[in-house]
Order: sequence, then structure tokens, then C-alpha cells
Amino acid sequence: MAETLAALRSLMASHSPTLDALVVPSEDYHQSEYVSARDKRREFVSRFTGSAGLALITKDEARLWTDGRYFLQATQQLSDQWKLMRIGEDPFIDAWISDNLPREAAVGVDPWCVSVDTAQRWERAFAKKQQKLVQTSTNLVDEVWKNRPPTEINPVVVHPLEFSGRSVAEKLKDLREKLANAKARGIIITALDEVAWLYNIRGSDVSYCPVVHAFAIVTLNSAFLYADKRKVSSTVSSSMQDFGIEVREYGAVSSDVALLASNQLDQDTGVNPGLNGICENDKCEAEENYNDLIWVDPASCCYALFSKLDANKVLLKQSPLALAKALKNLVELDGLRNAHIRDGAAVVQYLVWLDKQMQEIYGASGYFLEGEGASKKNPEAMKLTEVIVSNKLEGFRASKEHFRGLSFPTISSVGANAAIIHYTPQAETCAELDPDSIYLFDSGAQYLDGTTDITRTVHFGKPSAHEKTCYTAVLKGHIALGNARFPDGTNGHALDILARIPLWRYGLDYRHGTGHGIGSYLNVHEGPHQISFRPQARNVPLQVSMTVTDEPGYYEDGSFGIRLENVLVIKEADTEFNFGDKVYLSFEHITWAPYQVKLIDLSLLTPEEIEFVNTYHSKCRQILAPFMDKNEMDWLNKATEPLSA
Amino acid sequence: MAETLAALRSLMASHSPTLDALVVPSEDYHQSEYVSARDKRREFVSRFTGSAGLALITKDEARLWTDGRYFLQATQQLSDQWKLMRIGEDPFIDAWISDNLPREAAVGVDPWCVSVDTAQRWERAFAKKQQKLVQTSTNLVDEVWKNRPPTEINPVVVHPLEFSGRSVAEKLKDLREKLANAKARGIIITALDEVAWLYNIRGSDVSYCPVVHAFAIVTLNSAFLYADKRKVSSTVSSSMQDFGIEVREYGAVSSDVALLASNQLDQDTGVNPGLNGICENDKCEAEENYNDLIWVDPASCCYALFSKLDANKVLLKQSPLALAKALKNLVELDGLRNAHIRDGAAVVQYLVWLDKQMQEIYGASGYFLEGEGASKKNPEAMKLTEVIVSNKLEGFRASKEHFRGLSFPTISSVGANAAIIHYTPQAETCAELDPDSIYLFDSGAQYLDGTTDITRTVHFGKPSAHEKTCYTAVLKGHIALGNARFPDGTNGHALDILARIPLWRYGLDYRHGTGHGIGSYLNVHEGPHQISFRPQARNVPLQVSMTVTDEPGYYEDGSFGIRLENVLVIKEADTEFNFGDKVYLSFEHITWAPYQVKLIDLSLLTPEEIEFVNTYHSKCRQILAPFMDKNEMDWLNKATEPLSA
Repeated sequence: MAETLAALRSLMASHSPTLDALVVPSEDYHQSEYVSARDKRREFVSRFTGSAGLALITKDEARLWTDGRYFLQATQQLSDQWKLMRIGEDPFIDAWISDNLPREAAVGVDPWCVSVDTAQRWERAFAKKQQKLVQTSTNLVDEVWKNRPPTEINPVVVHPLEFSGRSVAEKLKDLREKLANAKARGIIITALDEVAWLYNIRGSDVSYCPVVHAFAIVTLNSAFLYADKRKVSSTVSSSMQDFGIEVREYGAVSSDVALLASNQLDQDTGVNPGLNGICENDKCEAEENYNDLIWVDPASCCYALFSKLDANKVLLKQSPLALAKALKNLVELDGLRNAHIRDGAAVVQYLVWLDKQMQEIYGASGYFLEGEGASKKNPEAMKLTEVIVSNKLEGFRASKEHFRGLSFPTISSVGANAAIIHYTPQAETCAELDPDSIYLFDSGAQYLDGTTDITRTVHFGKPSAHEKTCYTAVLKGHIALGNARFPDGTNGHALDILARIPLWRYGLDYRHGTGHGIGSYLNVHEGPHQISFRPQARNVPLQVSMTVTDEPGYYEDGSFGIRLENVLVIKEADTEFNFGDKVYLSFEHITWAPYQVKLIDLSLLTPEEIEFVNTYHSKCRQILAPFMDKNEMDWLNKATEPLSA
Repeated sequence: MAETLAALRSLMASHSPTLDALVVPSEDYHQSEYVSARDKRREFVSRFTGSAGLALITKDEARLWTDGRYFLQATQQLSDQWKLMRIGEDPFIDAWISDNLPREAAVGVDPWCVSVDTAQRWERAFAKKQQKLVQTSTNLVDEVWKNRPPTEINPVVVHPLEFSGRSVAEKLKDLREKLANAKARGIIITALDEVAWLYNIRGSDVSYCPVVHAFAIVTLNSAFLYADKRKVSSTVSSSMQDFGIEVREYGAVSSDVALLASNQLDQDTGVNPGLNGICENDKCEAEENYNDLIWVDPASCCYALFSKLDANKVLLKQSPLALAKALKNLVELDGLRNAHIRDGAAVVQYLVWLDKQMQEIYGASGYFLEGEGASKKNPEAMKLTEVIVSNKLEGFRASKEHFRGLSFPTISSVGANAAIIHYTPQAETCAELDPDSIYLFDSGAQYLDGTTDITRTVHFGKPSAHEKTCYTAVLKGHIALGNARFPDGTNGHALDILARIPLWRYGLDYRHGTGHGIGSYLNVHEGPHQISFRPQARNVPLQVSMTVTDEPGYYEDGSFGIRLENVLVIKEADTEFNFGDKVYLSFEHITWAPYQVKLIDLSLLTPEEIEFVNTYHSKCRQILAPFMDKNEMDWLNKATEPLSA
């Protein structure tokens, strides 16, 4: 640890120019949220394992920035050589550097691991004191990382039409129309899920995300996939060719972007199938002259590739694939619904199993009864730890059709661990289940027909009145959002408050957003929309056929955590009126697993809220029944008995 | 009408340069919302009487822009020579001019009647086609306005400390500290209510707003009041002098701003009392060199005055007085509470009177009973019109202590008129009260100790089920907002949705903001905060001791309108917890008048909402009792009987 920092400082000193600081972002060359083992550079240098964070190493300091989900976890994982910088409370890294590093300081970063947006924001902040952002020619962390995991060589597979619902040809046609409308002659696609979505391919280069390490370039005439050719079978390659996609080596993207900049890339390829439907008439050639921009998404394109372009000829704008991917087609929506039903069945089966274990091993009163003072009945029985039970949960999911793995590291957390918002239990150190503590699990899977994400919070003994109040407040927020109707055009920033108001009543809150999009056998977190207090949540209105989670929570540091999460699909609402001739929207819940009635303080629910829970529970029963054995069905019937006020 | 347009077009043609278009804003030289009769230029040219709007006269067209509150009213008032442009639906005036007028078109405007913000925004839009904003040297409307009302000569009065709560000396000291912190050596104060607030003066130059037509300039050393000296008695003048304020003629502001720009204004005055507390130590002289900016509020300062300054030496920023004035002191808060109690008593007395009239004259079942098919009992009885009853309401208010007039034109509206959001009945044309229709009244008064604003909606016969549903949805939104608790730092944009969600459930909405600040014996609409879907509502967080209204509504064109409005004071909430070490805030209702229980569909209210109404009604009874006679008290007791679910 100290060794790594010393080695990095030595490289910083010998770098030309000498670096006063080195930034180590969490992201890979594609600005991914989840990265492969060999790309976990920030984790390697800092030992902090959270999915979001940014390390800064200066000559005599090391600081790590992360957000509210990870404050507690970072405190626990960082050694005393590191100082935690809390995003939202402490100054941002660029402001900190500008305020604390000397004039003309040189701040190094690997330009492949930082987005255009971020790099340009930093450069603006640094300019105040003539500080410089230096693009290192190699990644200094890679140089000191002795046991860095090897490159993944996992096969690229074609994602069939029965799950994708839309052919590559149609997607390319749509994309090229958008390019032409934006006066662009090409686009560099850098986000891994956008490449996978556009070309209907999947892979397993990154844990939890079925993506391929790849770039794509699409012009009005050509299309390229940049991936390690060892991963691309001849079958896949010829399938790509059918759509006019040429497969090139991953590393070739760099020189090809340079060719694209000088308008020489298209000439290299004889493929020209993409024009159908765009340039049907003669005016096509004339119009081509106007299309001289290269579209680059500033949030996902790395600074290295952007630097090869003529900045005046770049259209810096969110990729059109972000929204196209978020608007699920009917096949994807059906797939997501089905995947969530199987997933809900696995969750209920897990709860039934866990309930039995908690009673048998720990003498807990169980899911339905409130009994105190349980103690381990049989000291010889196997210890149930957070990891052991989460493996069991994975087993229930793995038994389901189309299962392909988890969609993110399962958060399986007992008591105080549940207050660590993105807690990931480790087999060696994790906690044992406790009949006297809350247990929160946030988990999901990748199925060929959809990605899932669900959180439930349960108690197998006697929850305190305070825990019930908090659970009920979280549930009220979850219902208020999930039950909302709103005019077309409303964004997720406006809706966010609905999930918080019931918590604010007590002076409680949570330090994370309320909802994110979810992929169709792709990333569990996907944009461009979100439900959040963050200003970005204003950028994209919620639209029919988008998916979004509804996951408010409450976390009491050192004590317990509560979160409830369903996946919702946005649909047209069946309102009585349409004021202002607007379409009104509402949500369809597609997640199926009961809320724990024992944790609800019924006196705090309104009649509408009770009706919501009863309707939802009744649907759970009906929808999950085909997957339940007799014992499981008995449990589910009991768990979903109607509440009365 | 046609004559006016012709006369204006003739002046436009002979203007140098020739004008392709003339913009006639609603505002006076101070960018006031309510203007005096002689400043109603936009109303004079267009005949549209709403408080907000903008007229554009081109060589062959006349268009009027206004917002959703006035769509219906404008449709009714505009002649067929005018085309209504709906803000929010049609392009803004600047975009329209840029798109529709020729290249290099000259667009004239009186630079005294347009703010810096607006003029600069237009200039940016016009630049696309090299169009020009031309500052006319005279006001062309004034030239064609034959019977323009004369200048008001109303005395300036000192607003005593027992109502203002803070002395001019203290206010000037605070202001000068803010100037020094902002590196400004002076400020031009253009908003009438800011001048009145800062100097603790009031007047009656503008109907409904107790302000004086005046500018102010405050430097680190001097302070000036620019007003028609005929209005300033020697007593007031010497009181001003006590605070180091020199009174100059209204018209002198123009040349004084030029002197201020060249740093020659201070030298003209021997007065130098303002430095106490700012430049106590010797470093004052040294620091003075840094203070070379002139602070100008771009929203209230006219383009004419701004044009006299060196643009590089201007601090274009919201006036510090906007927030200072909005944060009411304890004396002002007590005054506002007391004024609202007297005002509530007047409203209840009015309702008692009106209830009796509706039964006696129209055979209505009355405020409490739901009876159908009433008909005028006595055809000889006096007709009750919207204006007659609103005069009666004014009478009840006028009988109260400290009454000084109304705070805005009373909206007294029956049936379809209630759907005109800012309807002002005219004696000759207004509607008669109708026992089968909803009656909405939105009104307020100026009292020496505070300004009031209240809306109630009532029905004296049998409301339809649809009217009840809508009233209940509006009430639910009104309660959801008024009952909210939220962390310090939350702005009115985030809260706005709370008042709309119950309406959105039915696909209903309203085309206006939800809340505005209210003055302390000053303007009924005051910023800088607001509760609204408009982006500006994000600029200023809601803060302890601010006032704000809570007034959702629903309007069915041609049929009926509903609005409920209370004034709230922001206070610290008494929450059980303080997550994130934040103070939580809530609202104190200071308006007192019952909601009409007959219009509530009780089955739609939650237990919390019922509790809110019962608690509020019980306080109404208790607080208003001292003002009620026996008959009135009986009525009030009945109107505030507890609801049960």
C-alpha cells in the first residue's frame, strides 16, 4: 500500500513534465461504472472497493473522493495514508486542486480513463492558477501494478432478435438518420452498453455487465467494431458483415479515429449498405457536404480519442443511442416483465428458505411473528453469514430460465452493515445473520430477456418501533413515487421529492438518488434519465417505455438501513382528463415480492396506501403462483394477506 | 383603437431610424408589476387589462404576449386587429421577431420601460439576423395618448419603526456591508418596493402598492432619494436627512447616474454618515480602490439607466435588498400575523353576509346546505353582481384597524368567470351571483402592519360531483404543500409538485405558479423566492421568516374555477431528527378563514388531511372569535365543525 504510493510518486517525479499530482479515476477506457478486474486501478491504489470514486496522489498526500452511498464504507477501507473527501460536503477535486496545489502545478491523468466532460471541467478550474492537466502517455498505475490480472478473452455472442426485438439494420438506419439530422458524418461510440445494444452483441468481459470491451464507429456509409479479434468467432464476424459492420482490432480505434478526423476512414472500406432510406433521392451527394461533424458523447468518450479530432468539427452531445436504448421496444418490455417474474419467484423462495433457517438455527420468531430474545438453538449448526445467504439467493436465481449471472454484487447486509448503502460482504469478514437485526438485500440478475434489480428489507425477530416508523416512511415514499401520475414532459428531478417527503416529516433523508434506468440484458444502471435531486435529472423527461427504479431508503449509521426497490415501466396513465391536451404518464410495477407487513406501522398508512399494498400483494400471489411449491405458496399467501386500516 | 395603431405606425415610420416594429411592455420606469394609470401604456394600446403582457406593433400586425393566467381574458379583450401569443405555447417575442421580421429590422422600445435583462436577451436573439433594438428617445405611446392621466402628486409618508421593525440606519449599514463585500462602491435601486423598504417610506402613487415613484442611489458614503419634491414634506425631508439621505428631483436620477459612473456623485455631497461600522480602521482608504463596481439589478433596472454606466464596471446581480426585504423581522412577522387575523375576520363577516343574501335574494340553500333549483325569490330585490359584493367585502376590510386600501384588484368571479385566473369584474359588464354556480374570490388588503392575500371558493347551492372532486383535489394539493417539512436549502421549484400531484391524478393541472412572497405593507407579490415550476424558482432557497402563498387551483374554461390560498410563514420545523445535521423547515399558516366543507368529498381525504382541516378550523374559531358578533360566531362555529372520516 505505502509501497504503491511510493512507486507512483517516483514515476510522477521522473515523468516529463514532473507531475505534482496524479489523478486515478475509477473508470476504464469506456467510462464504465462497473469495470473488469484489470481496470480496477483506483481500487488497487486506494483499497477502496466502491463503484464510484476518484483518487488523487500528490507528493505528500493521498485523497479519495466518493459520494454519500460510500462514506461509511470508505472510512472503513481507507488506510490512514488516505483522506476521505465527501462529495457534496467537501470541495470537488478540481476546486480542491485549484485551491491547494501551487500555481502552474502539473496534474497527470491517463487520457483514456477520463471523459471529455470531466477533463474539460478540470482544465477550466485549473486555468485560474495556470495549472495544467497532463495526459500521461502510459498509465502509471499499470506500471507499478505487478500482479495486474490478464486481458479477458471471452467470446462475443450475438443477442438474438427474440430478445433484442429490433435488428441491427433498423438500429443503424435510425442512428444514421439522427446523424444526418445533426449534420454529423460519423459517431464514435465509446460506452460499452451502447456498442452492445447497437450491434446486438453481448459478452462477458466485465463482471455483472454482459458487454464486450469494444468501441464502434458509425459513419453514414460504414460501421466498425473494435474488439480483440480473438473474441470474435467467424460466425459472429460474418453476422456482423451481413449488417455492413467491419470488425477491427481493439487497438486500431486510435488510428481509425485519426483517419475519421481527416475523412479518410470511409474510403478504406468498400462496404456501403447504410444509405438505404437516408439518401434515396439525388440530393444526397449535395447534402453530404454539410455533414462534416463527428458526434462524440462528452460523458463517455475518453479525452484520448477526443484529442485526435478537430475540436471545431466535433458535435459534443449526449449519444443518440442513450435515449434510443432507454426507450424499450415491446419485445424488450415483455422480456423484462418475464425476467422480473422469475426473479421475484427466486426472491420469494429465498425468503421462505431464510425464514426457516432463521427459526431453526437462531430460534427467531420468523418473518411473520414478533418475538424477542432469540438465541442460537444449535451451537453446532452452520453459521449463516451475509455471503452464505447471498450465495443461496444466487442459487435460486440460477435455477431460473435464461439466467446468465448477477447484475451487480449482491448487497446482503445485517444490522449496521445495511447502513452502508453499497455494502458488499466479503466471505472472510462478513457478519452473521441476526434475528434481532434488520436484514437488507439489494440484488439482481442478468437474464437473456432482461436485467433485474430489487431491494427488500426484512426482520425475523422483533423490530423496534423506530425501525417500523422508518420502514413505513420509506414505504410511503416508495408508494408515493410509484403511484404518481404526471404530465408528459415531467423529469425525474421534479418527482424525486415525492419519495422523500414522508421521511422529511421526521427530519430523515437518504444520500442517494431515487431511481435509475435499467437495461435489457445490459447494464443494471442506465441513463439518460434518472429520478434524483441531482441537476442532471432535469435533462431528460421521463417517457413512455422507459424503465426506472423506485428505491428510497433510510440509513442510520452504525445501526440499521432500510431500502425498498421496485423496477417500474413508464406508461400512459388512464386519467379521466387531459388538461392542456397533455398525455399523462404513470408507472407499471414489474417487480414482484411482498413488503414485510410486520415492519409496517399500519396507523401511518393512508387508505390509498393500504389499497396499493393490497393490490400489489394480490398480484404478487397471482403472478408468482406458477413458480411456488405448496410450502412456498402457503408462505406467500400469508405474506400477502390483505391489510386493513 | 385602430386609430391608436395607425398613429403609432405613423410615428414608427417617421422615427429615425425608421422602426419596423415597436415593443410596448407593461412595465413602468421601475419594472413594476402594478403600474399607475398613466403608465398603463400596454393596456392603452391593446385594451388588454391583465397585469402581465407585452405588445408588439409591426407595420401590418399587432400581437400581444401574455401568460396562462390571462389566456381567456386576453381572448375576450383583444380586438381582431390583435393576435394573442400564448407564453409557454407560442415562441417568445424575441424568437418570434428573429424568425418573422426581416434582416436588419429596427425594433423600437422606450429604454426606461425595459429591464437590462430583457433588453440584453432580445439583443442576443436579434443578432442572428442583424436586427437592432432601438432605444427611442421619447415614448411613442405617450405621444399618441391624448387623455393620458396626469402625474400623481401624493405625499410621501414615513413608515414608523413600530411597523417596519428596523431603522433606516440599520438597513443602510447592512446594505453598505453587502456593497463592500461585493466590491461595489454604489448601487442604483430601481424597484419601487425596495426604495420604500430601505428608506422606510410609503406613498400612494400606484394603486394597490403603497410605494412612491422614486429611485435611490446608495454609495459607501452617500444616499439619495429621487422623487417629485412636491410629494416630500419638509418633515419627511428632514427625517431623510437624519439618515444622511439627500432628496433630489425624480428626473435628476438620469444625470446623477452619469455622475456616479464617472465617480463624481459622492463629491457633490457633504453628507458622510454611512461609514460607521464599515471602515472603522485605517485600511478603509486603501480598500476603497477595490470598490469600483456599481451594483445594478438586471431585472428591475431599466436599460436607459444601465446605458449610462461603463458596462465593465457594473455588477449585474439581483439587488441585495430583494432577499433582505423578504426575510421579515419579528416586528413585521407580528404585524403580518395581526393583519391576517383582522383580514380573516373581514372575510368571514363577508361570507356570513353573502350567505344570507344568497338565501334571501336568490332562494339559495346557502353555504351549509345542498339545495338545487333556486330562483330569485324577489325579482324586485337588488341584483348582486360580482362588483357589488366585492365592494361589500372591501367595506368589511375597511372597517378594520390600520386598513389603507386593497392590495390588488379583487377577483370576484362567478361560474365561468372564475376560470379566468386574474379576472377583474367591471361594474357595467360583470356577472350576477348565481346560486347554482361556484363563486371564487381572491382578494387582499394593505394594512399598516401587513399586506394580505387570500382566496376562497364557495358554492351556495348544490355543487356537482365533478366540482367537489376538483375542489377536493385542489384542497389536497394546498394541504400537501402547506403541511410539508423539508430540509434547509430546498427551493420552491422542488416543492411545487406537491400541490399538483392530487390534480395530476385526474389529468388536471393549473397554468400558474403555486406561491409568491408577500410584502409587509408593500407589494402583494414579492420575490426573490417563489413556489413554481418555473426555473427561476430554483434560484433562491426558502428560508426562515420568509412569507409565501400556497395557492393551487383548477380552471375549467367556460365553466368554473377553483383556487384556495393561504399565506404561510417559513419557520424551523420541530422534527424528531435532523438527518445530515440539517435544520428542517415547515410552514405556519397565518391566513384564517374556513374551507367550505360542503365542497369537500370527504371520501378522498386521508386521516392526516382531515386532521389538518380540523386543526385549522379550530384555530380559525379561536383566533377570529374576538371579531365576531353572535350571529357571525354561530355561523363560524357551524362552518368549522370537525369533519369525521
